[in-house]
Parts: sequence; C-alpha cells; structure tokens
Amino acid sequence: MPTTITNISVRDIRFLTSDGLHGSDAIHKDPDYSCPYVTLETDVPGLTGHGITFTLGRGNEVCVAMIEALKEHVLGKNVEAIFADMHHFWYGLANDGQLRWLGPEKGVQHFAVAALINALWDLRAKQAGKPLWQLLADMEPAELVDHVEFSYITDALTPDEARSILEANAATKTDRAEALREVGMPSYTSSAGWLGYTDSEVRDLVHKYQAEGWTRFKMKIGADLEAEVNRARLIREEIGPDGWLMVDANQTLTINEAIDWMQHFQQFNLVWFEEPSHVDDILGHARIAKGIAPIGVAVGEAISNRVLFKQYMQAEAMAFCQI
Amino acid sequence: MPTTITNISVRDIRFLTSDGLHGSDAIHKDPDYSCPYVTLETDVPGLTGHGITFTLGRGNEVCVAMIEALKEHVLGKNVEAIFADMHHFWYGLANDGQLRWLGPEKGVQHFAVAALINALWDLRAKQAGKPLWQLLADMEPAELVDHVEFSYITDALTPDEARSILEANAATKTDRAEALREVGMPSYTSSAGWLGYTDSEVRDLVHKYQAEGWTRFKMKIGADLEAEVNRARLIREEIGPDGWLMVDANQTLTINEAIDWMQHFQQFNLVWFEEPSHVDDILGHARIAKGIAPIGVAVGEAISNRVLFKQYMQAEAMAFCQI
Repeated sequence: MPTTITNISVRDIRFLTSDGLHGSDAIHKDPDYSCPYVTLETDVPGLTGHGITFTLGRGNEVCVAMIEALKEHVLGKNVEAIFADMHHFWYGLANDGQLRWLGPEKGVQHFAVAALINALWDLRAKQAGKPLWQLLADMEPAELVDHVEFSYITDALTPDEARSILEANAATKTDRAEALREVGMPSYTSSAGWLGYTDSEVRDLVHKYQAEGWTRFKMKIGADLEAEVNRARLIREEIGPDGWLMVDANQTLTINEAIDWMQHFQQFNLVWFEEPSHVDDILGHARIAKGIAPIGVAVGEAISNRVLFKQYMQAEAMAFCQI
Repeated sequence: MPTTITNISVRDIRFLTSDGLHGSDAIHKDPDYSCPYVTLETDVPGLTGHGITFTLGRGNEVCVAMIEALKEHVLGKNVEAIFADMHHFWYGLANDGQLRWLGPEKGVQHFAVAALINALWDLRAKQAGKPLWQLLADMEPAELVDHVEFSYITDALTPDEARSILEANAATKTDRAEALREVGMPSYTSSAGWLGYTDSEVRDLVHKYQAEGWTRFKMKIGADLEAEVNRARLIREEIGPDGWLMVDANQTLTINEAIDWMQHFQQFNLVWFEEPSHVDDILGHARIAKGIAPIGVAVGEAISNRVLFKQYMQAEAMAFCQI
C-alpha cells in the first residue's frame, strides 16, 4: 500500500553558540549554529521523516519561509512514487518555475530544497528499516545512479560512467562495509581550532580530543598570519609528526595571499588548505592548487551546486588529498 | 546637517502576468512579475528612497523576510556616512557574519541586498536633485571608482585600471550625455517574443512595436527547435535584414545542444544568443562562445556576483557584440 505524506511541519531551531565563539572563523565571527527542522508525517502510524539544513542563526527564518513555499511539491505525495523517479522529483523541486529564479540551485532556495530532500531520504531509510548509509550502500549501481540528476554535468560524468565506477568498486563493498562497522570512518575534528579561542583553550582542547582518540585536527586561519602560524606550531607540537593538521580560511584570502600564506605554513606538513578564497573563483583556486602543492586544496562546503563542482573538476581546482 | 534613515518598510508587490503568459520562457513557464518594494524614510521632510528587486512571484515573501533580516544594517544610519564609504558599507551588508552563509553574494541573500542598495542610491539621487544616471555620470572617475568594492576581483581589474578607463573616456562624456538626452539609449524589446505566445500573437506584437519605432527584437527559444526556427524566420521576415534579432534560451540547453541549435539559426543573422546553458557553467559557455561565433554569447542576468563575472571574463566565455 502506498505511503502518503500527510503533513509537513518546519521548526526554527537555534543554538546560541556565539556565546562561547564556538564555530567562529575569520569571516563568520559569531555564528549561532541553527537549522530549519522539517518533519514529514505520513499515513503510516509512527512513520515520519526528519531533515535539516544548516544555517548560522539570523536568516534561519528566511529558510523556513522558503521551505513553506516549496511544501506544495511534497505534501500529499506518494513516497514510493517519489523514489521511483527521484531524479525528476528532485529536479522539479529545485527548478520550480517561479522559485528557481531565486537560485537556481544556490542560496536559500537550495538550502530549503536540501532540508526537504534530507527528510525524504530519512523517511525512506526508516521505511526500509536501515540507516541511510546502508540503504544507499545496498543499492545496485544502476539503482543508485538512477536517483541522481545528471542534466548539465554529462560532459564531466555520464550515468554510464558513474555506474561503471560503482561496479568496479563492487567487489570490495562487503569488506568496506564490515570495516566501517568495526572501526568507523576515519575523521578529524575542527572543535579544537575555532578562531575565537585563545591559544591556551586550543591546547587544552587538543589534549581533550587526543584523550578521546582523535589524531587529526583542523584549525581556522585568515585573520592574523603571525598568530596563526604560531598556533599551527603549537598544534603540530602537541599532535606530533604523524598527526594530521589542516587549515581553513573560510574564503577570506585573495588568490595571491592564499599562495603566499602557505609558504609560512608548509613547515607544518599540512594535509590540506580548505577554502582559501572566494568559493566562486574556480580559476583562482586552480592557480592556488598549482601554487601550494603538495598541500591539497579542499573546497565543497560552500560550492552551491553540481555545475560548479563540475567546473572545479574540469579546471583541476580541487586537489583533495588521496587517503 | 546629516540625513538619518528613520524607517524602512517592505511591501510584497505582485502582478499576475502568468494569466497571459507574459514573460514566459522555456524554463519559467508561468511567471508572475513581482518585487519586494523597499521604502526608506528619512528625517528630511519629503525625502524618501525607493528600491526593488525582481522576482517571479512565489518566493517574493522570502525576499521580503531577508530584507527584514538585513534592515538593522540600514535603519538609523546616516546617509552621508554611508555614501562616504559606500564600498565598505556594501561589503558589510553583503557579508553580514550570519546571513552571508545563505549566499554569499547569491540567491535570496543577494536579491535582498540589491533592494536595499537600490533604495539607497535612489535616495542619494533625490538628495542631489538629479536622475541616478546623471548623479553617476557627474562623478569624477576617482569618486565613482571609490564606490565599488574590488575585493576578490583585482586580478582582473584594479581600482587604478578602472579609473584609467573612465579617464580615457572622459573627453567624450559631455557629447555622449547630450546624445542620450536627445535620442535616448539604443534598446531592444523582448515583449513580442515570449514563449507562451502563438505565432500569430508574435506577428501582431512585432507590428505593434515596429509602429512604436522598435527595430530590435529578442525571442525566447529552448523548448521546440523546429517551431522556434520557424518563428525566427517569421520575425526576420517582418523586421527585414537590417533589424536586430536575438534569441534567449534561459539556460535550458546543454553545452552541445546550444552549439548544435545555432547551426539552425545562423541563417537568421542573429546578433547574440542569450543564456544558452546553465549560468554557472563558465567553461561550458567558453566552449559555446568559440563554437557559435560570430553570433555573440550574452549572459549576465543570472550571474550571481562579481567573482563569477570575473570568471566569465577570464575564460572568455562572454562574447558580447560590439555595438
């Protein structure tokens, strides 16, 4: 029996993280970590879907208003029908004939689409009785690829190419899933390196996270070169030569500054430099990637959409480290 | 005596243009031309500033909400102080530490900034007792350039270079202003070529606008190649070999389609092809520009910000016709 979405509620949730400058960086100096929180209700007792999109506080209400405007695409719809044709459904949501003008596929309009799509996937995973990662991992390559909208990006990646990549990796899938369950996903923490913290707070937090087992740390830069070089030295000393150290400028530097700054940081054996400059400057990031190798360039957090990602790939402006 | 902004009101204004498919194109099939309408009041009797940002209907209320969130940057401020340091003021508005996350400089957040900045310039022109174009034209090159924020774009254009361009053009400024007053600015009309119109409506509208003196026409394409080639033939026949004809796909085609389509249209001696593909695909538009010359490529309406414009210039992805 098909499942119908019978109600959509959106709450405006905010945490006053700016009180302690948690989350602070060179350009977002006082964020209040917040989200519109979407709940999809269905005609199946107990079955709901939950989704959020992340904001920095003010403007959270603007995202809520945009989700309200998009509701009509989801309310009353059949969940099975949505997932039988997800890539068209997504496209229709992201390209509503009047709302797309406010994006397209960027800014508040795209944040709002994300909250709804996240809630739908959460609902789907709950229907299947699996965590979302497993729902996706259990799909056959063709099924997984069929959920993705490829318009405007096939000159970089076709559905057939995507399927081939997944098929080539299929042989090791079971082992990788097993490893994930046993040891977890390798990850790093930013929580010791917010820009608003003092050096003494940073040192204490590095110790705290080391005690929890963390060996990979990211720190914010972009406001004060000398102070931040000293902080990188401090963290490198604490984590030793084998720990990972990354830096993140949250887009504050010019292209030339980004390249110059890394001459001061290369002594610390950085794994990557994240968001050195304005995220829309693809050709500039290509120049940075060449200029600071072997330090990688990490971007993505603020890249608005698949077409801009494609540009980054084509311009070789991303240089993710190979793990 | 300084002028203070004492009140800001924002109205949600909509026109139901979708009733007649006015404004319709291949991707915006039923727009309702709309705007948040900003009014700045001051402590000078009778002195107000008015600004809008254009939307397609639904979501207009979302832009209104974003303007409300940005109000605090403008309310109570001194107009003279704002314009004494406009580029910093603009940057602070466009890069509010919490709201910029929802852009930056794109989508609803940037639309909202635009409405406020437009209202401020309207206010400034009224203070000066001049139309806005004349206020700007009367500025010395250094003064005009000082109003512009150059961060992130100086690798394409420095303030000094911008000033030199203006200075080089200064000798002919008076004559150009005189010509503008006497004969007006050369322009074209899109009003005969909306996609939702029938061929018969298009023909009647071309006649109507010709009777008003128009010789330059733009038509929408991107939905039906054969029908649109026929429509281009129809318009070219009506306007004769000397009239200008342009086409606009509003981003609907892939890069290869855009190049292929122009092989069918080149017989009509087009001046430019507007928004052939996804506006974020800069490298793709560079390919189109090379592939369809001497037809120009026009973009800009949906390019979010100065950094993306810089990319288009650097990649030679715009090929505006030289008038």
